[in-house]
Order: sequence, then structure tokens, then C-alpha cells
Amino acid sequence: MFNFRTDLAVERRDLYQKANNLEEKINGIESEKEEIEENIKIERVKITNEEGEKAIGKPIGNYITLDIKKLKIAQEEEIEKYANILSNELRKILDIHVDKEGEVLVVGLGNIYVTPDALGPKVVNDIEITRHMKKYYPEYVKEGARTISAIAPGVLGTTGIETVEILKGIVDNIHPKLLIVVDSLASRSIERISSTVQLSDTGIVPGAGVGNTRAQISHDTLGIPVISIGIPTVVETAVLVNDSLDLFIEKLQQEAKSNDYLNKLKEEDNYEEIKEALLPNDYNLIVTPKEIDGLIENMSSVVSKGINLAL
Amino acid sequence: MFNFRTDLAVERRDLYQKANNLEEKINGIESEKEEIEENIKIERVKITNEEGEKAIGKPIGNYITLDIKKLKIAQEEEIEKYANILSNELRKILDIHVDKEGEVLVVGLGNIYVTPDALGPKVVNDIEITRHMKKYYPEYVKEGARTISAIAPGVLGTTGIETVEILKGIVDNIHPKLLIVVDSLASRSIERISSTVQLSDTGIVPGAGVGNTRAQISHDTLGIPVISIGIPTVVETAVLVNDSLDLFIEKLQQEAKSNDYLNKLKEEDNYEEIKEALLPNDYNLIVTPKEIDGLIENMSSVVSKGINLAL
Amino acid sequence: MFNFRTDLAVERRDLYQKANNLEEKINGIESEKEEIEENIKIERVKITNEEGEKAIGKPIGNYITLDIKKLKIAQEEEIEKYANILSNELRKILDIHVDKEGEVLVVGLGNIYVTPDALGPKVVNDIEITRHMKKYYPEYVKEGARTISAIAPGVLGTTGIETVEILKGIVDNIHPKLLIVVDSLASRSIERISSTVQLSDTGIVPGAGVGNTRAQISHDTLGIPVISIGIPTVVETAVLVNDSLDLFIEKLQQEAKSNDYLNKLKEEDNYEEIKEALLPNDYNLIVTPKEIDGLIENMSSVVSKGINLAL
Amino acid sequence: MFNFRTDLAVERRDLYQKANNLEEKINGIESEKEEIEENIKIERVKITNEEGEKAIGKPIGNYITLDIKKLKIAQEEEIEKYANILSNELRKILDIHVDKEGEVLVVGLGNIYVTPDALGPKVVNDIEITRHMKKYYPEYVKEGARTISAIAPGVLGTTGIETVEILKGIVDNIHPKLLIVVDSLASRSIERISSTVQLSDTGIVPGAGVGNTRAQISHDTLGIPVISIGIPTVVETAVLVNDSLDLFIEKLQQEAKSNDYLNKLKEEDNYEEIKEALLPNDYNLIVTPKEIDGLIENMSSVVSKGINLAL
Repeated sequence: MFNFRTDLAVERRDLYQKANNLEEKINGIESEKEEIEENIKIERVKITNEEGEKAIGKPIGNYITLDIKKLKIAQEEEIEKYANILSNELRKILDIHVDKEGEVLVVGLGNIYVTPDALGPKVVNDIEITRHMKKYYPEYVKEGARTISAIAPGVLGTTGIETVEILKGIVDNIHPKLLIVVDSLASRSIERISSTVQLSDTGIVPGAGVGNTRAQISHDTLGIPVISIGIPTVVETAVLVNDSLDLFIEKLQQEAKSNDYLNKLKEEDNYEEIKEALLPNDYNLIVTPKEIDGLIENMSSVVSKGINLAL
Repeated sequence: MFNFRTDLAVERRDLYQKANNLEEKINGIESEKEEIEENIKIERVKITNEEGEKAIGKPIGNYITLDIKKLKIAQEEEIEKYANILSNELRKILDIHVDKEGEVLVVGLGNIYVTPDALGPKVVNDIEITRHMKKYYPEYVKEGARTISAIAPGVLGTTGIETVEILKGIVDNIHPKLLIVVDSLASRSIERISSTVQLSDTGIVPGAGVGNTRAQISHDTLGIPVISIGIPTVVETAVLVNDSLDLFIEKLQQEAKSNDYLNKLKEEDNYEEIKEALLPNDYNLIVTPKEIDGLIENMSSVVSKGINLAL
Repeated sequence: MFNFRTDLAVERRDLYQKANNLEEKINGIESEKEEIEENIKIERVKITNEEGEKAIGKPIGNYITLDIKKLKIAQEEEIEKYANILSNELRKILDIHVDKEGEVLVVGLGNIYVTPDALGPKVVNDIEITRHMKKYYPEYVKEGARTISAIAPGVLGTTGIETVEILKGIVDNIHPKLLIVVDSLASRSIERISSTVQLSDTGIVPGAGVGNTRAQISHDTLGIPVISIGIPTVVETAVLVNDSLDLFIEKLQQEAKSNDYLNKLKEEDNYEEIKEALLPNDYNLIVTPKEIDGLIENMSSVVSKGINLAL
Repeated sequence: MFNFRTDLAVERRDLYQKANNLEEKINGIESEKEEIEENIKIERVKITNEEGEKAIGKPIGNYITLDIKKLKIAQEEEIEKYANILSNELRKILDIHVDKEGEVLVVGLGNIYVTPDALGPKVVNDIEITRHMKKYYPEYVKEGARTISAIAPGVLGTTGIETVEILKGIVDNIHPKLLIVVDSLASRSIERISSTVQLSDTGIVPGAGVGNTRAQISHDTLGIPVISIGIPTVVETAVLVNDSLDLFIEKLQQEAKSNDYLNKLKEEDNYEEIKEALLPNDYNLIVTPKEIDGLIENMSSVVSKGINLAL
């Protein structure tokens, strides 16, 4: 399979179309766009059959991409607005999978000690949980209020335990009706960092976008629906250089007209070569905005507010 | 039962003796002291029967208290030394409950976002885990090496889930042979903050020392031995004021000779009254050193090194 | 002089009145109260002559105390409201000392690495500065906009330099017309922690409230007006115990009727004795809410927004 | 002048030689290498005249580069060793410029809230200062001990004040004999991130390596010698892509033999083009290891210990 090196369904679809020189749409993949206002666009991608699933390597289900141009410099008022938009989309997708009172467990993936990976744990810290209130202070809980709990299980590298093993244990013990999983994603585009939010109802494969695949967190492995909310926070450095070379080769081709050698190069995927030649092995190199500490705060506010409103 | 408002077995034993004017030792409680060097003392308390258990409200088992006078201003060299001492004691208690290769799960209790409660999660972050290595990189793991995993499950107030429920799920899924639980404790004595380490093999009741009791984490609830490592990081403010008043009343009595009213006062426990009269309700007030941020770092180093060495 | 152990003018006035059994107001001290709404009160204290100055150990000038009962649990909307109220009071006091375009330097006192002392540096980080814009990007600065700069100079304990020496150097180089100094204060009352904001135009003596007096930051030492914004974040532990004993003795007196010995005790200041007897020397012990990390964030938002609005 | 986009003298020298196809050494630049042990190398570069100065755009003076291959995964023992090596080099350079008792001010440049830029402020926090001890506790200071103070003045973007303006004020007030300035650097090589330490006695131009030049901090502007300690923490993304393209073009040339178009491309500097074409403007994009939070801690330990030992 083509290695997409992105977690975003819209990017995978575009890459697939480009790689296969498709002009029409892919069988099994439906898309529709909506422009909420000048800086805010929503694209809804639906994978409807196995052909679509195979094409872009993402399971059958719904993928909603919010593009918010100014999320990075958002002030409080705008954070409130974006949270509302996210909350609307989340509510629609929730209503498909769980009833109004169905218990929800919010899971924040990632490592609190690694800035661009801290989104999930930070969001969890701001979720308004009610599960313990019902037990210890039932008088403060409105009748019919949804039971909400939340956990940041850590990452395999610091726990030694697959996240899905941890979650399986908890789900079997507390029996929520649905999981909302929040994670940092990898994207291929620098512009999407802290500008795009992807919602889906197909679960999540941690580390898939950075070639570090872990056991999936999904209806298949946990037995309950899993809704994921992801925001790109990094672009892998080798991906960026690879994409840069592609653009560069295209430019060479335009100028130098036909050139068999370049054509051959263009067809190849230079990723592994770049990785070996240019980038040392000891690190996990990422491209990220210098201001990522502050951006993570903004994104975390939008997502936690969005979830709180929707629940 | 007498409300001890401390998690430390040695403090409870002393309070019980004082409250009951006992000069000899309590039936069912054995103690021995050892002085490692001028600033480092170890006291081993053993509760041997139900009478001892009932007296001080701690289950039958071993309680080892390390007193390290200069832990608070320790430099790296001393941190290394203290970690070695802790590691020796921990190894002894481990050997009673698990064989050399038995899988261990290290659990860091507490809230990473609340400085004096962050000890557990910080320690977990520095544990050398091997469980995932055995699966993904077996070539890097020495034969016979112990399988180690670690988790910081969060606190009821931010997850909505009892810690023991989370741990039960994980233990049922990954089947460790023993748990090591690290937690911040409450003490009655300011001198013990960041100077005392208590090791025990009887599990832990989170929040017990601050009157905020949660379901216990123990062999009874999890089905495997639970070793706990606790360090006092706070004294509850009302406890401090209460103890201050006791000392003050004693002084009044000495000066004013017999005074029936004072005697009556002395017999009473003024804790609830103090709490109502002097301390507002909205807060969880604590007495803590201003330098607690730095102290937590030191303590976390000692404990994580101590555990790594012992395992 | 009486040792007030508080930075708040209103607390000092009340203590002075109580200590001297004054029922009428102190000569040289004028007060007026205003209730903005149920949970928000403002008290304006004016020290008008040397007699007032001597009575409570605070220089001639204006002291405005905002009491906001729910600051500790404030949501964004309320933070906005409190910031507006602070901004109104700040604007009034600014207008007395500097014209609309006069350059202002905002100074955040305190230590970013010590949670209850981090208020000042955190506020500085959120001030909207313009001074460098005027130099590097004048096209983005509105005509007539005030020149604003900001600095967090650190504390004597980590710099080795008196804060006033650092500020003197900067003031002499960049010539602002006025200083706004933000600092954490000590109070005598736990209820005031993160509920009270004191504004004054008389400068500041860092550490004065905790008996750790440093050279003052004022018109006298810097040659320009100094407006201070302070919020209590701690109560010194010995002060709390001392105040508790006073209340306790009062109670004893009421019950036991006249008691010469108690009367004598009551007249004494037991602070030093308490400190020696009950509290170990190596620490700087404070009473603080366990939730102080989160409270500091809230307070920092109110103050930085308040300053930004006023400037 | 050639735009080197690196703060390291050794990288500039190599780039200059390559760009000018020089095989012999540059007039006015002397170098010598020393291998301390397998993983630790020192290179001493001396710029001796204006020709050398002009060639690589660095002032006349000494540039010492320590290359420590395993700094990134260093344990405490190694951190101690590296600190000792740094301290030896620092002591040599100090002895040239100040006598044993001459007062030193340590300055940590950078922004504590931006992870890869936090090195300077973190180091300052661990410097053992003595200046205030001499004033307040002279009995604890050994006779002849050097007076040391330290400050983290913040960055222009958050203070609005040029760093040199702040330092000028402080230097004029407290009159140190020498400044040690610690800063994060930009490098052209990913391998150098957290592996290289550059010591020099020519002062520093903040932001020079990332094209964001600020007023220099040097003997010229402050009137006293300025020793700088810098560690690369980032590579600018456009620099990385540019260097990747150069390598790629070289490869194309080798395979495709002579190709005039490629030759021409190779001569050009594609930096600005890449920046415009590939990288959005709103961000300050950097390439950095994902583990940068932890790396900064290690580097900060080496530098603070190194300085403390040398002073």
C-alpha cells in the first residue's frame, strides 16, 4: 500500500487522486464541502465501501474536517466560536452512535511531557466529568445528566502497555456506551498545523501518521463506538523534504522539458532515501512552529470546550 | 475510631500511645530502629495481629519509615545515596512477595497539575520500563530481565473513575505479579515534609490522610501484592492549628496549674471546630514549604532511582 | 512599630484599630466603600498625612482594594468582567499620574519557578507590548498609541541583584513615564487569597508582608510614579496559627470570664514564640489552597487583561 | 555578504571554504582540533584579522566548539563529565579576560515559555549566585569568593526592550567585570542539535542565526568582556530543505553528468524561493527533535554545572 504519512482522510484522498492521475472521484469515497464563513470550512468525507477503504487505507465511516484559518492566533471570543462549531459537528456524530444519556469516556492520547504531543492529556484535564458526582454528590447532578469520565492513559513509550490494553480494562470495568478519543495528528501540510480538526467515527490507530503504528482503538477492539478528534501538530521532517523535492522535480521538468531521468525520479518515493541520507537516526525529527507551546493551549481550549458543549 | 489525620504508621502509633497514656508498647505492634548514619534513620514497624490493626487503623503488615534529614537540600551525590538506601529496603520487601523475574506494574497516584500532589506521576515518568521492549525490540532486552510497566491513572476528581477501577481493569488485562504504588502523603509534622519515605506491603487508601477516603488499592481489591511508597508533601492546615492549640493548652496548664475548663478542652478534639471557625470551606487548605516545586523534583528523583535500582 | 505581617492597607488599618481599641477612624486615614454587585466590593483607603502613615506603616497615597468573592472559581465570562472592573480603577489612578500617551513599563515581580510567587512573571507574559513595534514595525502601530514595555526581573534569591537596581538601570536607559508593578502579596486572611486585588500609587516594598524586606520600588528610588497591583496568594503559617490562638484565647476569656493570665497572654504577640516552638527553621512555610496552580492562572488572566484594557 | 544562517563559526568556515572551493585554510582563520575521547572532540577556531572576520562574518576572537556525541542521551554521570570539560574550557577563556575575584554577571537569553528557546533562562535558574550573600549574609561567604549574579532579561518580543538596553542599565548600576551570556543557537546541521557547545569571547548577536538580528551584546556595547556559551537547539526548516536540495542536485549532477541548467541552479541560493514557495509566512518554522523538552533539561544541566565549576 501507498504510504500516505498523514492521518487526515482528506489529504489521503488528494494524494491518491494525484498519484493515480484521477480526475473524477474515487469509487467508495463521497465528499461534500461547506463554507461556514470566510475563514472556516468544513469538508465531510464518507468512505462507503471496501474499495474506498482500500484506496486510502482508512476504514468505512465518516471523516469531518474543519479548517479554521486563524485558530493559531485566536483570542477568547474566537475560541468560543470555534468550540461551538466543533461542538455542533460532534453532536451530530454522537447522535448517530449513542443516546442522550449514554455514558461517555473521554480519552486523551499522547505524552504530557512532549509539547507537540500533549494535546490529549491537556484536553482531558478540562473535561467536565460527572461520573464521580453521581456517586459521591448526587444532589449536585441534574436528573438525566449524562455520565462522563475521562482518562489520559499515557503512551506506550512511558507505560510499556499498549493503550488499547489499558482502555480495554477500563471499558470492561466501567461500561461506557461510547469513547471520544483526542489525539495529536501528523499531517503532510504545514498549513494544517493547528488549523485543522478531524472528527471521525472509525476509531484511531495511534502513531499511524508517523510510521509508528500501535494497536487500533476502535469498535472492533473495544466493543463500543469510538469517535476521534484529532488536530495536526507536526509534520515529519522527512515528509516535508520529500514533498519539497517533488515540487522541485516538477519545476525542473517544466523547465527542462522531457527528461527521462527526472521522470524516473519523480515516480520513485524518495522518503526512505532522504531519511537515511539526510536525517540522523537517533531522533524523531519534526517540523513544528516555534510557537507550538502556545498553540497547543489554544487548540486544547477549543477541543475541551467543544466536547463539554456537545456532551 | 480516633481520627489520626496522618498516613504514617509511626505517627499513628505515637498518637495512639499519647492519647491512651501508654508507656509500654501496643500489643500487636512491633518496632525496631536503625541509624544508618547521622542524618538517616530507619524505623521498621510491624503490625502483627488484629489488636494492632484496630489500635492504629492500619492493616497487618510491614511499615518501613526512612527519615532523611537533608533530603530537602540534597545535591546529586546525596540523591544517589538516598536512592540506594531506599532501593535496599524496597528490594527486601519485594523479595518477600515476588520472584526475581515476576512482572511489576508501577503506579503513580496523584495529579500532575497540582504541585504537592504531582510526586506519583513524576516518578512514573522516570521509571525504566521494559514491557514494550520485550514485544517490539526483544533483541535489546537481557535474558531474565524483569518485565516492568508503569501508569499514572489520574485522580478521581479529574477522571470520574475510582483509581482502583482503572487499576483492576489493567491488572486483569496485563497480569502483573505485583504493584508498586507511589503517592504523596499527608503527615502531622511539618518536619517530615520531604524528609520521610514510608514503604509498606499493605496497599494504600488514597486520600485517607486528608479525610477524603477512596476505595483501597490492595491485595484484597486487586488480587496481587501491593507495595506502597509514600512521601509526606503536605500537612493539613486545620491539623497544624489543632496541634498548635494542644501544645498551647498544655503550656497554659503548666503555668496555670489545674484548670478544669482547660482540662476539658484538652480532652476534646477541636479539629472540626477549628475547621469551621477559622478556615473557609471553599478551599482545600494545606501547609507546605514555599519551595515545594523544587522539593518534589528531588523526591521524585530519589524514588524513581530507588525503584529502578531495586527492579 | 507593630508588625502587621500583611501587605494590605485595609488589613493594617483594621489591625491598628483593634490593637488600639479605636472605634472612630484614624487621623490621616480616610476610607470609602462601594458595592459594585453582590460579590464585588471596592474599598478606597487614602492615607493623607504622616500620622496615618505612621499608624499603619504605609506611605501617603491611595490604596484601592477590590474584593471579588468568586474569583477563585471564575469562568471566562467572569474573568472578563473582573478585568473590566480592575481596568476602570487602574485607569482612574493612571490618569492622576501620567498622560494618555505617556510611556509605561510593566514589571512582574516574583519567581516563575515557585507557584504562589509566579503571578508577576505570568502577567508580564500576557501584556500587549508596543515599544518594539514602534521601532521595527511602525506601520502596525496606531498614531498616538501608548508605548508599552514589560519585564520580569526575577528575585534577589536567584539573581543576586536587588530588583530596584535592575529597574533603576532600565528606567535610566529607556525613560518610561510610569511603572506598573505586579506582585504576589501576603495577607493575614485565608479568605483573601485570590479574592482580593490591591491597587496603590505608593510603590512597593518586595517581601514586606513576609518579613523579608527588600529595597523599595517607588518614586523615591526610581524618580517616576510607581503604581502597584498586588494579589494575596499566601498566608504565612505562623501568622495563621497566631491569629488562631488569639481567637482561641478570646473564646477562653468569654467562657472563663476574667482571667489575668489569659489577659496577659492576649496582649502579647506570640508570633516569634510560635515560630520557634512549632515551625522548623529550614523552610519558608506557607498556607495556601491546594488548587493554587489553577488559581494563579485565573488571577494572572484578570490582571493582564485589566492592564491591557487600561493601557 | 553570504548568508550563513548558522551561529557556529566552524560551520561558517566550512561553508565559506566550500562556496569558494578553497582547499587551503582561510587567511585570518586558524583552527586546531583535539580529541578528548571517542565521543568528545574540541575544535578551537581563532579569527586573527579583518580578512578572517570578513570571510565568515564573525568578529576577531576565539571560538571553541565542543562536540559531544551522546549529550542527548546522557545520564547523570556523563552530564558531570561533560560539565567538567566545558568548565575547563570556560576557565581558560575566563582567565584571559578577568582576574580570579572579578565580579561576573551570567545572562540567560531566550524565552522560558518557548521550549527550544528556554535554555538560557533555565541555566540562570541553576547558577550559584553570591552577590546578595555578600550583602545580607557575609558570614556564609568565603573570603576571596567571586561575586556572581545572574539574570534572564526576556526577549524583545515579550519585553519590547532590546536586551542590550536592559543589560546596559544593569551593568552601569552593578559594575560587573565580565558577562557570560548563555543562548540557544541555530545550526545548519541536525546532528549538532544538543550535541555541540560553542564558547566564544566576542559577544553575541541575538537572533543572528535565524535572520532576526538584534543589537549585539559585546564589549563594544557594554564596555566589558562578553563570553558567550551557545548550544544549537533548532535548524530553520527552510535551511534544511535548501541543504537537502543542494545534496539532491549534486546527486543529479553526478548521475546526469554535465547539465548546464542544474549547474546554474546549484550556484543559486534557493533559500528565499523555498521559503516563499513551500513554507507559509505566519509561522516561525523549526526542525527540532520531538524529545526537545527533555534535551533542554540535559543541556541546561551541563551548562549550569559547567559555569558553576568554572566560577
